[in-house]
Amino acid sequence: MSQLLSIVKECDLFPYEQDLKPSHYLLKTHDGRATIGHIIPTVATELLDKFPDFLTLKPSKELWINPKLSTESLRSTKIAEVASQLRQTHIEQFPTLKGWRAELYTAYYPNHTKYFQIERAFAPLLGIVMYGVHINGYIPASEEEGLKLWIPRRSIHKPTFPGMLDNTIAGGLGGGLDPLETAVKESYEEAGIEQSYIRHNLKQVGSVSYIYICQDEGGLIQPEIQYVYDLKFTKEMIPTPIDGEVQEFYLMPLGEVLQKLNNREFKPNCALVVIDFLIRHGFITAENEADYLEIVHRLHRNVGLPTR
Amino acid sequence: MSQLLSIVKECDLFPYEQDLKPSHYLLKTHDGRATIGHIIPTVATELLDKFPDFLTLKPSKELWINPKLSTESLRSTKIAEVASQLRQTHIEQFPTLKGWRAELYTAYYPNHTKYFQIERAFAPLLGIVMYGVHINGYIPASEEEGLKLWIPRRSIHKPTFPGMLDNTIAGGLGGGLDPLETAVKESYEEAGIEQSYIRHNLKQVGSVSYIYICQDEGGLIQPEIQYVYDLKFTKEMIPTPIDGEVQEFYLMPLGEVLQKLNNREFKPNCALVVIDFLIRHGFITAENEADYLEIVHRLHRNVGLPTR
Repeated sequence: MSQLLSIVKECDLFPYEQDLKPSHYLLKTHDGRATIGHIIPTVATELLDKFPDFLTLKPSKELWINPKLSTESLRSTKIAEVASQLRQTHIEQFPTLKGWRAELYTAYYPNHTKYFQIERAFAPLLGIVMYGVHINGYIPASEEEGLKLWIPRRSIHKPTFPGMLDNTIAGGLGGGLDPLETAVKESYEEAGIEQSYIRHNLKQVGSVSYIYICQDEGGLIQPEIQYVYDLKFTKEMIPTPIDGEVQEFYLMPLGEVLQKLNNREFKPNCALVVIDFLIRHGFITAENEADYLEIVHRLHRNVGLPTR
Repeated sequence: MSQLLSIVKECDLFPYEQDLKPSHYLLKTHDGRATIGHIIPTVATELLDKFPDFLTLKPSKELWINPKLSTESLRSTKIAEVASQLRQTHIEQFPTLKGWRAELYTAYYPNHTKYFQIERAFAPLLGIVMYGVHINGYIPASEEEGLKLWIPRRSIHKPTFPGMLDNTIAGGLGGGLDPLETAVKESYEEAGIEQSYIRHNLKQVGSVSYIYICQDEGGLIQPEIQYVYDLKFTKEMIPTPIDGEVQEFYLMPLGEVLQKLNNREFKPNCALVVIDFLIRHGFITAENEADYLEIVHRLHRNVGLPTR
C-alpha cells in the first residue's frame, strides 16, 4: 500500500466490509425509516439506562428515537436536555463534552430534511454526520516558481491535534450557516482575509468525506463531510491569525507539502483535503501514485447516512 | 431528486443496496480470492455450456476461472480462444462482439497485478472494469466572458450513441498504453492537437467511476473508471476532427452546457465527466444544487473490484 493510501486509511478508519458484524448500535429515526448515526456500546448503555424516554433498543442493535418525539422541535428539546445532563454527570467519561461551545449542528432525515438540532460537542456521541468547510489558500504557479500552498500550524493550546499542520482555513458548519457563509466567516477569523476578497475569489470545488474513529474518545464513530474550496492568494496577501487558533502560517511548495504529509505532520482529516488538492491540481497522478484510483474513491466515501 | 442527480443515476445504474440478492453471477479469480467481474445469466449459461474448461459454477452464483489457468498467459490465451469462437457463433446474440477491434484490455488481480488480457469488444460480457481517459478542453474565463467548454457531437455513423454530445476528447485505455499516453494519442486523433502542446498543458485532475447497465445489450453490467484531465485551450486553437469519430465541435458557455445536460443531449458517461468539471470549477455548488453531496459521492463510486 502506498504512503498516501495509508494516510487516507488512517482517517477513513471505519471498515468497508459489507458483511462486517458491527459491534456498535445504529441510531434510527423515530419511524425507523433511516439510520442517522452510529453509537458505540459504552454510550448506548448510558443513554438507555439514564434516558429511557429518548431511545428504545430494538433487535439488530438498533436504537430508535422515541416515536413520541415526532417533530424537529420535540427532538431538539429532548436532545438538549440529555446533552446538558450528561455534561454535568458524565464529562469525565465522555471527554468530547469538555469541548462544549453552545453551538448547534443539524442532523438530517432523508431528502435533506432537518431532523434535529444538537450541541456540537454532544454530536460525536450519537455518531451523526458532521459537516465543515476546508479552504486551500494557494499562490498559482508563475514563470519562476511552482504552485505554493499556505499551510498553518495549529496552536499548541488547541485541545485536539495541538501543533499539527492544518488546511489554510477550516471550520465546522454550525449555527445555521451554509457552507459559503461559514467559509467567509472562518476566512476572516482564522486568516484575517477581508469579506470582499473572499466573496470574489473563493471557488467551491467539491467535497471530501470519510468515517473517522476517534481512539482518544473510546472509539467514537465520526462520519464527516467537508465542503472543499480553493482560494487564490495574490503574492502580496499574507494570512494573519486573528482568533488564536493558528500559531503560524507557512508558504509551502508542493514537494514540501507532500513530504510533510508522508511524515504525518498534518491533522488526519486535513491531510485528506490536501491530497484532494494535489490530485485536482495534477501534482499527484496515476503515473506517480500506485494507489491513485483507490485514493480518489475513498476521498469521496459515501458515508451511508442521510445528508444535507 | 434533482435533474443532475437523475443524470448521474441514469449512468450509475447498478443498485447500491447491500442486501440486494443479485440475479447475475460473480466472476471470481482461479483461486477464489477476488471478484473481478459481473456476468449476466444469458452469458453465464452460454459460457458454462460451450466452454466448460474456462469457468466452473460454484455455490452463491460464483463463476470461478479454471484453476488450471494459473498464469496470466494461460488465461489470456484461453480468453482469446473463447472470444474468437463466440464471435463466429454468437455475434447476433451478443452484439457487443460486432465492435471487435483487435485491441487488448487488461483485467486486474488485487494489488494492481495484471490478471489477463482481453479483446475490448468481449470484455463487457465478463463485466470486468474498463478504463478510459476523458479530457475537458476549455477556454478560461476572461474579463469579458465566462469559462467555455469545447464540446463535440459524435458522428451519426458511430455504432453507439450516434449524434450525441461527448467530452472534448475521450478514448479507452487499450493496447498497453497508460492514461497519459492514451490522452496524448486521442488528443491528436480526435481533435488534431499537437503532442507538444498536450504534454505541456494537460492536467490530470482525478477520476470518475460508475457501474453502467447496458440495456441495449440485454443488461450487461459495465463497471467503468475514467481518468479525467483538463486541457486549457488558447483562443486561437480550434479542435479539428481527424479520425471521423466527431462530427463537429462547439464552444459552449457553461450555462448552455448545463441546459444540454438537462436535455439529456450528452452520452450518459460523458455527462458525468462534465458534471465533475462543473463542480471542480465552482459552477455547480452546494448552494445551487440540492443533491450536491450525493452527486460528488456517486461520481467517485468504488466499483468494488480490483483496479489498475
